[in-house]
This record gives sequence, structure tokens and C-alpha cells, in this order.
Amino acid sequence: MFRNTMPRYEILSPGAVEVLDRGWRRIVSEIGVQFAKPEAVELFRKAGQQVAGDVGRLDPDFVTEQVALAPREFDVQARNPANNVHIGGDHMVFSGVYGSPFVREGDVRREGTLADFRQLAMLAQSFSQLDSAGGVICEPNDAPLDSRHLDMIYALATVTDKIYMGNVVSGPNAADTIAMTSILFGGRERIEQTPATISLINCNSPLRWDDRMLDAQFEYCAANQPVVLTPFLLMGAMSPVTVPAALVQQLAEALSGIALAQLIRPGCPVIFGSFLSNIDMQSGSPSFGTPESGAGLLCTGQLARHFGLPFRTGGGLTSSQTADAQAGYEALMTLLPTFLAGTNFVMHAAGWLEGGLVSSYEKFVVDVELLRMLQSEFTPLEIDEESLAFGAHEEVGHGGHFLGAAHTMERFRECFYRPLLSSTANFERWLRDGGKDASARAGDIWRRTLDDYQQPPLDDAVRAELDEYVTRRRAELGD
Amino acid sequence: MFRNTMPRYEILSPGAVEVLDRGWRRIVSEIGVQFAKPEAVELFRKAGQQVAGDVGRLDPDFVTEQVALAPREFDVQARNPANNVHIGGDHMVFSGVYGSPFVREGDVRREGTLADFRQLAMLAQSFSQLDSAGGVICEPNDAPLDSRHLDMIYALATVTDKIYMGNVVSGPNAADTIAMTSILFGGRERIEQTPATISLINCNSPLRWDDRMLDAQFEYCAANQPVVLTPFLLMGAMSPVTVPAALVQQLAEALSGIALAQLIRPGCPVIFGSFLSNIDMQSGSPSFGTPESGAGLLCTGQLARHFGLPFRTGGGLTSSQTADAQAGYEALMTLLPTFLAGTNFVMHAAGWLEGGLVSSYEKFVVDVELLRMLQSEFTPLEIDEESLAFGAHEEVGHGGHFLGAAHTMERFRECFYRPLLSSTANFERWLRDGGKDASARAGDIWRRTLDDYQQPPLDDAVRAELDEYVTRRRAELGD
Repeated sequence: MFRNTMPRYEILSPGAVEVLDRGWRRIVSEIGVQFAKPEAVELFRKAGQQVAGDVGRLDPDFVTEQVALAPREFDVQARNPANNVHIGGDHMVFSGVYGSPFVREGDVRREGTLADFRQLAMLAQSFSQLDSAGGVICEPNDAPLDSRHLDMIYALATVTDKIYMGNVVSGPNAADTIAMTSILFGGRERIEQTPATISLINCNSPLRWDDRMLDAQFEYCAANQPVVLTPFLLMGAMSPVTVPAALVQQLAEALSGIALAQLIRPGCPVIFGSFLSNIDMQSGSPSFGTPESGAGLLCTGQLARHFGLPFRTGGGLTSSQTADAQAGYEALMTLLPTFLAGTNFVMHAAGWLEGGLVSSYEKFVVDVELLRMLQSEFTPLEIDEESLAFGAHEEVGHGGHFLGAAHTMERFRECFYRPLLSSTANFERWLRDGGKDASARAGDIWRRTLDDYQQPPLDDAVRAELDEYVTRRRAELGD
Repeated sequence: MFRNTMPRYEILSPGAVEVLDRGWRRIVSEIGVQFAKPEAVELFRKAGQQVAGDVGRLDPDFVTEQVALAPREFDVQARNPANNVHIGGDHMVFSGVYGSPFVREGDVRREGTLADFRQLAMLAQSFSQLDSAGGVICEPNDAPLDSRHLDMIYALATVTDKIYMGNVVSGPNAADTIAMTSILFGGRERIEQTPATISLINCNSPLRWDDRMLDAQFEYCAANQPVVLTPFLLMGAMSPVTVPAALVQQLAEALSGIALAQLIRPGCPVIFGSFLSNIDMQSGSPSFGTPESGAGLLCTGQLARHFGLPFRTGGGLTSSQTADAQAGYEALMTLLPTFLAGTNFVMHAAGWLEGGLVSSYEKFVVDVELLRMLQSEFTPLEIDEESLAFGAHEEVGHGGHFLGAAHTMERFRECFYRPLLSSTANFERWLRDGGKDASARAGDIWRRTLDDYQQPPLDDAVRAELDEYVTRRRAELGD
């Protein structure tokens, strides 16, 4: 997996960090945080916190004490041990697009299906830049609603042998995820020892954790499966319209959710989550890849490190409708800061389009190219006498050409990044090849990748047990 | 003009800087640098340097002494004083695409004309993100070859009132640039006092400065007009295939060119130039926006600061044939590091396509959007108690909505970046608006911008004098 040992780009002064630190403390203690689940409120009450109705007015020092119980780093196992990941430190984990009701395939935009879900999982399995296909890669609208989560977990567990994200629609769905993951890994004890799935718990921002998400969080934390506690902040809608205000609110929400996790099971693994962008005040729609979101991302990384927490930000976010220039630059406007910040867990790393409403096959390939480039760029240069190639200058001389130099011939295969999607063909060659733009070429690439896909092997007994579980639960759920 | 007061992102350790510093010293002293102009060789000889034929084997300490004579920062005046720029420090100057023989307008790729040149200059005049239209915005292939430089300087001086770049095809062309600029600014003394044009002097890398470029450099330096001394490095062709080797060669070439500038006129303004990317070893074509070029760019900024020199890197570089996703992400792969490095002079900041062979109208608009976003992102956040908007939380409460909050209503017009090109329209709205991708919308924007263009006023007497100069010189040149 990828380790980012380049320097972090930090833009907050120590004074600014102090102001932001005072800010979240004031919010959790004076405004408080709402937890729409009696068991959560009860845990805070028992821990000596002020509770009025379902709002906890929390002592900030209590919150930081709870936060300190969370591990700074932890492992998550995949069913193929070669795909195990480590969360935290300088490790970066990349996970696919999550939660889109629609898919786009070239010029066709339509509702996602279970077949799309499986195909997108196959793409995630095929590209080594991705550590996980994600969770709800697209909504499988043709699968029965009540048992859809079983289909998704089953696909993630069989089509890929990478880590995957759990279902969070309800407590029972989370329990199903844990049960199926337990089957896959040989029992619940095995996954309690080393977690095997990561789940996204979104805050109903501002300052409210909803019941169904909390139900899921209780299941996952009790099973020692990591949760990504994520304030969902589109500035102007779910938070005030300044980045500092959003950062302070984000701290209040994420830290309070992490404190709850530690009350459920002290020491359970968590990820400081961030989903921070803004509304376009003219269209009223969400904007992605904005200057505000880039700056917020850089600050988020610095703040998460301040609390010693692994963190989630970023992805190939864009508002664009198609895999066009806007999609390319907006995705990179988020992905490059993602690397500058050293983000530990990157959701929506490939395939996101149209503000997250669409999982796009072509955009998936664009994003994989971006990940490949950035993983290369954020690998430190080796700088020593040998690397200066003095002998090549002696060989080539003034005004000469290095193409045939011995130094070049020894290295030409591996010396530079080799693109997946980008074309450097000259104009005539490009025309001869069909004059295809990047989106059209991306279409060729994902189709070829699906053709070449090979399903990773799975023990027959495990598969049978999974099948049996899904069949039984589907019947119980009435589908 | 834009000042970048954000932190610099530096990736070279002190030890790495030392290795690179030893590297260029070894090259200039042991391999030496070729100067294909007897007057240049003579200047080095007189200064006590070893010369064999036209190759100077330079004492590195002599080179750094000469380099130390160059000003760390300087002003360049525009004919509209509101468009004056400052080169160096945290100031960033943005200049348009330079040197393309072709233009692209939508799906049409064709030879550039003088009309294109003027239209692209009008675009540069119209967008405040650009401080200069550049120099050879595109090649005006329909203008007579020998006097073409007069047409270009005339267009730059009349269509825009921003700074512009001088012609470097020959010494006489440089002299014409200086003469016309002198007319525009009221005499040569005025521009010797405060320079009014910047010129690009490319090295014929590796390690050779060519006669015609040197002829131009002599003219400009003698007139105290800044030159951008730029190693032209496509790794694998003009330099070895490692980034450290390219950096060392770049130092040897740029510093030797700067030393020559100081021998011509001690204290004359210079810019440490960089044009550093790599060959695609499979196609043999140049690649842009690569991981190697991004890393090289960041190192270049750090090294230029090490020598106290203002520097040039970056631009919206791409190999792509059209203003597609590749063009968007490759441009940003260079432009974002350009801001991280705090580049002082950015050539090719708008309009570059197809490896620089094409000046593209649509890409121009894409790049202006990128500049607008980055100028916004690299403006420091104001973080104080007021910015935390605590009162908005009191007003909105848990699970509420900030769209109607007083804090939002007071700020909604200016609180976020407002895009020029990017669309956040929802799918139905986007379809109603024609379902145009970013490139199609960019086409609408540049046409509208040309419609709205207004020529900046110019004193009649000055225009007459310019006209007279061009008419006379055109006749002398036989066109």
C-alpha cells in the first residue's frame, strides 16, 4: 500500500490552531451536540456529562480524554492478506465512489443496477491504486430494498478480495455486515481482533447524530470495527459560510462522535472524518473542488494530527456532469491537497461525478490516472551523487542529445511515470487513432479492464456459508 | 497583482540541496558551458575564466559572485500604471501562452494568424488574472516573416495595456522591441530606469547558449530589460532521465546565463528560468503535467530561493489535443505546484494545448478558471473569534439549516469563490441549458469576452510614432 513520506503542507499558524481549539470547545459545551438515540445519551450521562433531553453539553476536556483512548494507528484485514491495509501514520488508503443513485456510461446516464455495482467493484479490484471498492459503489436500484445491503456486501466480499465498507442504513444492516464479514474471516473473534470492514457514520450536521446512523455505530464499535465519524458540511447549508466556522463545527461533531465511540467500547478504532465543501450561492447546488474545500482539507489534516487521529478527507470530487475538463481539474483540486495533507483514508477516490449523484465509469479511469500520478509524485526523489548522472554529460557534450546515452538506455523503461489514460501522441497519430478525447479513451480502458478481470478465488465452504446466510436473511426480510 | 503569502511547499532536505549544489559546480567547472557568441566568450575570458574555443570552464564561486549582483526583486512598468508588476518576493506574475504555431478554436485546428494573435491578446487584456498577454501568443503565420516581430510588438502595445514580452529571434528584433517600447514609454532612459518588457532567453540544452538568443540577450541586458534565462529541459532528450540530474543541469545553465547577464551589465534584472518536463519514452513525444515535472518544479523554486533569485516555472501545460479532462488535470498538475512553489513569473499561464504546438481559445478559459481558483485558494484564511460565527449556531440549532441565517445573509454574495466556467447546475437544468461540457461553455465565454472587449486608450502622438517606426522598419526589412 502507498505510504506518503513527503512533507505535509500545513497552512494553520499555532495561533490559528488555538483559536479553532477554543471554538469547538465552546460549541460542545455551550450549544451541545444532539444524539438521537437514548442509549447514546445515557452513556454520556453516566460518564458525568450534562444532558438535557437528547442534547449533551459536553466538557471539552472529557471529550479529549475520550478521544485519547482511540488508537493512533490500526490495521484492517482483507481476505487476501496482500491487500491488508494500515490506517494512520503516513499510510494512505484509497476507496471508491460511495452512495450514487445513478451511473454514467459514456453519454448514457441512468439508474444504477446491481450489475453496475458488480462491474464497478471489478474495476476497483483490477486497479492496484485502490485499496477498497468502497461500500455503496452505486445504488443497486433493481435489487429489493430491504435486502439490498446483503447483495452489496456479498458482491464486495466475492468480486473483490480487498477491504470493504459496511452498510450503515440501520442497526440490523450493520449487524448483517458484521455477520457476513465474520463468515468471511472465520468468526467474529477474528475480526474483533483485527478489524475487517470500515463504516461511514455521517453526522446530520449541524450538531446532530441521527438514530439510524447511531444504531449502526453502536453495532460497529461494539464489534471493534472502525467507523469514520464524518461531519457532512456544505458550507452555507449545514455550516456557516466561513472556513474557520466550518472547521470548528467539524471538530465539535467529529470529536463528540469519537467520544461516543470510546464510550461504547474504549479503544475501538475510529477515523476523524471530513466531508467539507460549500454551496454555490447562485445555483444553490453543492460545489466541489473549490478553493474553500481545498483550504479546508489542508486545515483538517493539520487538526486531525493535532489530536493524534487518523483522518479521512478528499477524493475525486466534482460537480461536473461529464468526464470533461471541469471533472479533471475539480477532481485534482481535491486529490492534490489530499496528498499534501497526507490523508489516511480517502473515500470517493475513483468514479465520483455530478456532485456524487453519479458513479461514472469513465471518471473512474480518470481518477485512477490521477491516483497513479500522485502516488508517483509523492514518492521522494533519491538525490545522491549517482543520481546526478555526471557521466552522461561527459558522454553527450554541449548541445547534444541524451536519448541514446548509456545512462538513458539503462533506465528508459522505468525512469518516468507511464500514463494509463493520458495521450502524448502527436496530432497526426492521435487523429489516426480515432481522435478520441480523454473521456472516450477512458471508455476503452474500463471496457478492456472488465474483459481482463479475473475473480479472486474464494473457499467453496466460505462461499456456501455466505450464500446460506444471504438466502436465510433475505427470506427473513420478506424479499 | 497577486501576492502569494501562503507557506512554500519545500521537498528538498538541506542534505539534498548540498548534493545538488556540488553537482552544478562540477558541471560548470569540469564540463563547462558553451557560448556561441565571441563577445560572450570574451567577457568570461576578461573576467579571468578559463576558456577553450567557445566553451567556458567557469569557477563556480565566480558564477555565484556574478549571480549575487542580480537584483532580488524589481519592478516592470506597464503603459497603464495600474498594470505595473513587481517581480520577486511573494509576488506572482501570470503571462499567456507563448510560441505556438497553431491555434485551436473548438474542433478546428489550424495555423495561427495575426488576427488570432490579436484576439488572444484581447482575451489576456480582458481577464484580470493575467498580468501579461505574453510574447508570441501564437505564431502569426500570415504576416511577413522578416517583419512579423513588429506586428506582434505593435499588437501587444496597442491591444493591451499590460506588460509584454520582447522578441528574441535575433539581436535586431530585440533592438526593435526596445525601440518600440522606448516610444511607448517616452524614451529609452525611462525604460532603462524601470524596465518595461521581459524576454525569454532559452538555452539550447544541454549546456549551450546559441548565437541568436545571445544576440538578443546582449541587447536586452544592455538596455536593463529583464531576461528569463531558461534551460529547456525535456528529460531523456535535453537532459539525463533523473530529476536530480535535470536540476543540476538546470542550475549550471541558468546560473551561467545569469552570470553572463551581469557581465554585460552589472545589476541588470534577471529571472531564473525553468522549463522542465520529460519525454514519454514510449511515444518519444514531450509529456507535460507529469509527476516528474511537478516534483522538479517544487525543487526549482526552493533552489532559486537558495540563490536569492526570482524564478519562472509552471503554466497550464498539457500534452492533450483538446480541452478535455486530460487538459484540465495536466494543467492543474503544473499550476498547483506553481502556487505551492510561489513562482514569481509564470509563462504559458493560459491557452497552452498539445505540448505547446497549439494556442487554444477554449483552454485559455479553462486556465483562467484555474488561475482564479488558485489565487483564491492561496489567499490566507482569516481566523479569529469573529470568523467562527458562534452566533449562527445559536440561531440555527441542532440539525438546522444555515441558508437563511443572518450570518449567511450578510455574506452570501462574497463568501465563496464564484466560478467563471465550472457548472454546478443540476442535471435537468444543465440539460435545458444545452448539455454543454466545459469545453463548449468555454467557447461561449471567450466569444462573449471578445464581444465585450474594449481597446485601452493610447495617446495619438505615441500611436503615430509607433506607426511610423513600424512602417519605416518594415520597408528596411524588405516586407
